[in-house]
Amino acid sequence: MLIHGPNLNLLGEREPEIYGRSTLEDYVDRVRSHALQIGFSIEAVQSNAEGEIVAAIHRARLEHDAIIINAGALTHYAWSLHDALAAFSGPVIEVHISQPNAREPWRHTSVIAPAASGSIAGFGILGYELAVSAIASLLGKV
Amino acid sequence: MLIHGPNLNLLGEREPEIYGRSTLEDYVDRVRSHALQIGFSIEAVQSNAEGEIVAAIHRARLEHDAIIINAGALTHYAWSLHDALAAFSGPVIEVHISQPNAREPWRHTSVIAPAASGSIAGFGILGYELAVSAIASLLGKV
Amino acid sequence: MLIHGPNLNLLGEREPEIYGRSTLEDYVDRVRSHALQIGFSIEAVQSNAEGEIVAAIHRARLEHDAIIINAGALTHYAWSLHDALAAFSGPVIEVHISQPNAREPWRHTSVIAPAASGSIAGFGILGYELAVSAIASLLGKV
Amino acid sequence: MLIHGPNLNLLGEREPEIYGRSTLEDYVDRVRSHALQIGFSIEAVQSNAEGEIVAAIHRARLEHDAIIINAGALTHYAWSLHDALAAFSGPVIEVHISQPNAREPWRHTSVIAPAASGSIAGFGILGYELAVSAIASLLGKV
Amino acid sequence: MLIHGPNLNLLGEREPEIYGRSTLEDYVDRVRSHALQIGFSIEAVQSNAEGEIVAAIHRARLEHDAIIINAGALTHYAWSLHDALAAFSGPVIEVHISQPNAREPWRHTSVIAPAASGSIAGFGILGYELAVSAIASLLGKV
Amino acid sequence: MLIHGPNLNLLGEREPEIYGRSTLEDYVDRVRSHALQIGFSIEAVQSNAEGEIVAAIHRARLEHDAIIINAGALTHYAWSLHDALAAFSGPVIEVHISQPNAREPWRHTSVIAPAASGSIAGFGILGYELAVSAIASLLGKV
Amino acid sequence: MLIHGPNLNLLGEREPEIYGRSTLEDYVDRVRSHALQIGFSIEAVQSNAEGEIVAAIHRARLEHDAIIINAGALTHYAWSLHDALAAFSGPVIEVHISQPNAREPWRHTSVIAPAASGSIAGFGILGYELAVSAIASLLGKV
Amino acid sequence: MLIHGPNLNLLGEREPEIYGRSTLEDYVDRVRSHALQIGFSIEAVQSNAEGEIVAAIHRARLEHDAIIINAGALTHYAWSLHDALAAFSGPVIEVHISQPNAREPWRHTSVIAPAASGSIAGFGILGYELAVSAIASLLGKV
Amino acid sequence: MLIHGPNLNLLGEREPEIYGRSTLEDYVDRVRSHALQIGFSIEAVQSNAEGEIVAAIHRARLEHDAIIINAGALTHYAWSLHDALAAFSGPVIEVHISQPNAREPWRHTSVIAPAASGSIAGFGILGYELAVSAIASLLGKV
Amino acid sequence: MLIHGPNLNLLGEREPEIYGRSTLEDYVDRVRSHALQIGFSIEAVQSNAEGEIVAAIHRARLEHDAIIINAGALTHYAWSLHDALAAFSGPVIEVHISQPNAREPWRHTSVIAPAASGSIAGFGILGYELAVSAIASLLGKV
Amino acid sequence: MLIHGPNLNLLGEREPEIYGRSTLEDYVDRVRSHALQIGFSIEAVQSNAEGEIVAAIHRARLEHDAIIINAGALTHYAWSLHDALAAFSGPVIEVHISQPNAREPWRHTSVIAPAASGSIAGFGILGYELAVSAIASLLGKV
Amino acid sequence: MLIHGPNLNLLGEREPEIYGRSTLEDYVDRVRSHALQIGFSIEAVQSNAEGEIVAAIHRARLEHDAIIINAGALTHYAWSLHDALAAFSGPVIEVHISQPNAREPWRHTSVIAPAASGSIAGFGILGYELAVSAIASLLGKV
Repeated sequence: MLIHGPNLNLLGEREPEIYGRSTLEDYVDRVRSHALQIGFSIEAVQSNAEGEIVAAIHRARLEHDAIIINAGALTHYAWSLHDALAAFSGPVIEVHISQPNAREPWRHTSVIAPAASGSIAGFGILGYELAVSAIASLLGKV
Repeated sequence: MLIHGPNLNLLGEREPEIYGRSTLEDYVDRVRSHALQIGFSIEAVQSNAEGEIVAAIHRARLEHDAIIINAGALTHYAWSLHDALAAFSGPVIEVHISQPNAREPWRHTSVIAPAASGSIAGFGILGYELAVSAIASLLGKV
Repeated sequence: MLIHGPNLNLLGEREPEIYGRSTLEDYVDRVRSHALQIGFSIEAVQSNAEGEIVAAIHRARLEHDAIIINAGALTHYAWSLHDALAAFSGPVIEVHISQPNAREPWRHTSVIAPAASGSIAGFGILGYELAVSAIASLLGKV
Repeated sequence: MLIHGPNLNLLGEREPEIYGRSTLEDYVDRVRSHALQIGFSIEAVQSNAEGEIVAAIHRARLEHDAIIINAGALTHYAWSLHDALAAFSGPVIEVHISQPNAREPWRHTSVIAPAASGSIAGFGILGYELAVSAIASLLGKV
Repeated sequence: MLIHGPNLNLLGEREPEIYGRSTLEDYVDRVRSHALQIGFSIEAVQSNAEGEIVAAIHRARLEHDAIIINAGALTHYAWSLHDALAAFSGPVIEVHISQPNAREPWRHTSVIAPAASGSIAGFGILGYELAVSAIASLLGKV
Repeated sequence: MLIHGPNLNLLGEREPEIYGRSTLEDYVDRVRSHALQIGFSIEAVQSNAEGEIVAAIHRARLEHDAIIINAGALTHYAWSLHDALAAFSGPVIEVHISQPNAREPWRHTSVIAPAASGSIAGFGILGYELAVSAIASLLGKV
Repeated sequence: MLIHGPNLNLLGEREPEIYGRSTLEDYVDRVRSHALQIGFSIEAVQSNAEGEIVAAIHRARLEHDAIIINAGALTHYAWSLHDALAAFSGPVIEVHISQPNAREPWRHTSVIAPAASGSIAGFGILGYELAVSAIASLLGKV
Repeated sequence: MLIHGPNLNLLGEREPEIYGRSTLEDYVDRVRSHALQIGFSIEAVQSNAEGEIVAAIHRARLEHDAIIINAGALTHYAWSLHDALAAFSGPVIEVHISQPNAREPWRHTSVIAPAASGSIAGFGILGYELAVSAIASLLGKV
Repeated sequence: MLIHGPNLNLLGEREPEIYGRSTLEDYVDRVRSHALQIGFSIEAVQSNAEGEIVAAIHRARLEHDAIIINAGALTHYAWSLHDALAAFSGPVIEVHISQPNAREPWRHTSVIAPAASGSIAGFGILGYELAVSAIASLLGKV
Repeated sequence: MLIHGPNLNLLGEREPEIYGRSTLEDYVDRVRSHALQIGFSIEAVQSNAEGEIVAAIHRARLEHDAIIINAGALTHYAWSLHDALAAFSGPVIEVHISQPNAREPWRHTSVIAPAASGSIAGFGILGYELAVSAIASLLGKV
Repeated sequence: MLIHGPNLNLLGEREPEIYGRSTLEDYVDRVRSHALQIGFSIEAVQSNAEGEIVAAIHRARLEHDAIIINAGALTHYAWSLHDALAAFSGPVIEVHISQPNAREPWRHTSVIAPAASGSIAGFGILGYELAVSAIASLLGKV
Repeated sequence: MLIHGPNLNLLGEREPEIYGRSTLEDYVDRVRSHALQIGFSIEAVQSNAEGEIVAAIHRARLEHDAIIINAGALTHYAWSLHDALAAFSGPVIEVHISQPNAREPWRHTSVIAPAASGSIAGFGILGYELAVSAIASLLGKV
């Protein structure tokens, strides 16, 4: 399951000097086709609401082997996501398009990192492909 | 009104070494039967969404005499709940299944405690029964 | 677009010694009539949910020239709103009914202020009228 | 064993708007009669001295099944009590008459909570009865 | 009374990308003419000295109905101004030309805000006109 | 009642470059004779134990009109004394022989000051005489 | 020399529930008559300006044996006063009318205390008389 | 260039429950063979000395297109590495074998992250392969 | 003089995985026999009360050449002990059975260390023997 | 323009072990003669008042090519000076006679450094000559 | 293995009022002869370079049973040493000649203590002999 | 002796907008020729390794009269340099090419400043010439 948090539906429109010009649809398409090559199918979820993301993570417990999550600004304060991810038994990969450590101080702390198997930041769309490859490897598919 | 916050729908599944093996339904049933003995009826609400919990608290202003709330991880940062509870005139009791002060530092602060009449932590399911008893006493029903 | 955050639907009922006795409807009516005099029409949104407010701000990108926002308690921790407002190109005005700096310490910090064109606090309902006047001026309507 | 810390011998006299008008003797009597109904006998100790409370806790290791403690101001800095309670194997319940989180900042931290099975705050004399009920339940007496 | 603090006599010359190109005289003229329309006369004071501003505020106690103050850098540490304004019984409005929350961290704290009826920031010269309008409304002149 | 805290029994022996060479007995004698001139009798208590000082303060509630207290190092962390003093209705005067603000940082904070009517520091033995004079004045004896 | 800092010229008018109803003139008269009894003459200075107070302290080096200073809000941040007082060789006594430790946190720190021989707080007008008595004693006049 | 910092020469021996049982040689071999498939050759450097790592980074300016760096404990305080990496114009990827955010607090801060194009943490040996793939992509080799 | 603080009377019973299984009596016996070999006699004191330990230190001024002290949890906040030890002119050695720096953060600070000649931590019972040897050496007995 | 802040008029009298025995006049004479050799004339200003220094800096905008400033204690909190200096377009050099980093902690922070071209500290009177030489070089006069 | 960190090669020359007049060679000789009596041989290493000390610790894994380390200033920030020591399986004893807790604040924290079996501070050269004795005891040689 | 720390060998190449385009060789040449005019010979050392710089400072104790040091990023955390410089008896001058106080916060603290006679920052290559002049003056060569 590929989860995007608030404002990431604006990808391609918002602050393109930081996030680039690809839309979220572009991102998802590219990740999905990369995943298909390896033999994964991906369900993509985007929500601006913390509660819906918690629910999506809960659903993933039943329907998915792994989670890739870019929680947007919620990364930095939404402990509910931490608890939800901590209750997921498969690999959880935190992805950030930009390098949060090089931006405002409040973006330097991730409250979900302690509940993630791994973190990938700063690679733009490539970061998602790396995450898919990592999951393939962690699940022994490659 | 008995309110549960995010991830508490996973009770019995998530981190059973901390939260035990009873499900949320078990919890609600046991609290409800305990309440019925005293003469209370209970409406149970669970939501992963801060906004819905705010709305539930608002509704409780019209329909309920007291609130028992376990806000999960929202306890530690969701000031909206604080403001909503502060606008409720009856008893508000904050319950935690585990003892947050003995866990990670971010669980040591409760932003809703200043708006609660009382707090009960660390007693598992028993904590809810204590809360019901407390409300009975506070409302003069016992 | 005029956005109100959590608990502001209780205006007139909750802590009237701080917020006064006018209801949210009174507020909206008065702001709307003030706006009409200048030649603006106003869409008023109230939500207790951070995600819905993010979505409303996104929608405003297409349908509105300016945003007036009183985010309630979310003002102090909801960075998602910051990111959403930062992606809005027109004027954004943060309004508070009371003076947050004269209340509890956690109300002294606004995470949305860095993404707002301007801030107005402490004037009660008058603050909204000032905000409308400011927008008129910023958009060259007066 | 029911332990009260410094200044609680003044109950009923000191700041009655916070602590009520019942004396410590009233408190102990009511707790004791509540306990007797369940089948417990209670030894009540009050001391203004940290060292005596440590000694009382040590003695409880030999003579009692559970501890109810309201350590007064010592709650907030007396780590010796923490260590003493951590060495007690039965249930330890921390009780506060008022809600410390709604008072001065230095009352927001409890150094004994990490060594307590559970905490109950804000219920006045009722909190002690809840604690007795909790112990009865934890020891399987009910 | 319209009070400007240190360095604001350089308006139009200093950091025009932040403060614009209007001079302090332009500001005062425009505020004065706006005020005259409503029926106010304005005394404008500018001083680089904290003590003179304290004295001006004291004088305003006798001669003026309201204060508009932009204290410049003194906003962030000059508690004497706080105490002087707290002793003024009419409306006190704090105005900032730019949005201090979007600049250096030391500009995020206002020590005079707790003594101000309201605050307006980020609107350039328009902020003063809003302040005048607000005073008119607060004093029942409109 | 004149209360001295821990280590003050060593006066005249310990760090004479800070505390001078007069013994505690000298101090008490001089304060007592000064008090007698005004018409007060003084009970002097010295204890190294926080609990005993709490008890002395409680006893003073019944037997004395005012308290002069130099709590020694307890000044800086013993909140039990704060609570005890807050429950005393007459004048409470905190005295320090040296100027704590000019010594180690941990001596800069007094947890009992918020419960004291007044504080006097840095005057050596003279500070106690000033305290007696102050009490005489506060109780209308002079 | 008796020095008063900013806003103390408003004594008797400003926040009388904290500072009482005596005017600064009353204060000075009473201190002066008290001093005369002992054989001192007093020069009284009040200024709202940090620089003028520094200059007054410098002048006192030549013309006075001791300084009594209530620096008002400057007490809490004006390190220039600290340096000026540190260069005065006679007794320096810091006086506060109210008990700053029982008010807002920013009033708990005195930057001039390390440069003062002694401090007296919380006694209202009486504090000044105590300061005069202390100086008499320190200078061997009594 | 593949750079390992202090103590990473002990890989496979030290804390295998955190770092696994592969030796540094295993790591380098696997990364090298992965890189060869893509068409990269890799120079591997390990040093326990901050100065040598700075020098290696300087050398990479002349001889390499990209840097993969796991600086070990130096990650958390060695600002010299930050400055050296900031002077490298090609991609810099920070890799950690474990998830530092889930370990001791001093491991939560990376002083080199602001100078890195991207960061990958928590994937064990796989993290290096992801880094190689990322570089291939960033340099347009894939 | 060998001083043990609160809870150390439970040695051998409390948290044996940290403190081992020897009782306090075992400790004292072994230290005493070790001391006798060198020619020292030891008075052993254990108290759970800060005030009694202060008094013991005062007594040691008259009767002993050196102090070995393990103040238990008081180590971390009881500044009265600091002041008492600072008034002792012979060697003072602080001993801890475990390594406090490897335990909870509140155990990382010792308020008595600045008043101790030396500190020994982490050696269990051996630490006391080292302390005796050190004293022998410092007093020129070896 | 050569600016000296509060208390520097006492040079040669105050704390000569830190500041030496030369008077301010000595300083100015020596700096002036050094400057004359290079071809500069110097206007020397000393004020104990923050506002006057702000005004002097403003005047320097019209009349001088460079500023040398030793702001005394104002260095550490007077942000008005920062803003005034930031509005000066020529070289600004901050000079300190002693090394503030080796004195009290509050002297370790300079709020004017971010607005200064360069800083020179610890060289006594020599520091001013270095500053003059630096200005000569920066203005291309040497 | 006996390890000395930076600047300890200057023993006897640098700050003799703190470190005494014995040279490092004196120290090593005395420790070595003390060790020989017990049956240990000692390899002594001194280095000013963190990386070399890390390497020495690694080598000790193969060649030595225990480590005595005085890391000098590196004690307070060099986490690489922490990690290296944590990978050593035998006893590690941290020694300091002076009492760091009685010196500058930055010397109060030891980043290597959590990785040390025990710590000895404040005993000068004697501390090393105590460390040797401790190792003998921990390894069962005595 | 002229000491440069890590990354300063890249002068002229790295971030020329901050550090200019002169190479380290240019710097050294210019400083050396400036020194020769005054009659000094200079030994220039550059190292990326903290340990080598410590060793260079030690060597300077025997071979040089003064030290000019730009420690690069080590300035901000390498306490070993502080201790080494503190053991040097001649003048020590800290130089920075840019103004660290106007850059990232971690560059605002110098751990070597307390061990330096003086500091010069923000003057580019000119700063070194000023340092040489200062040394000439301090050593009485001019």
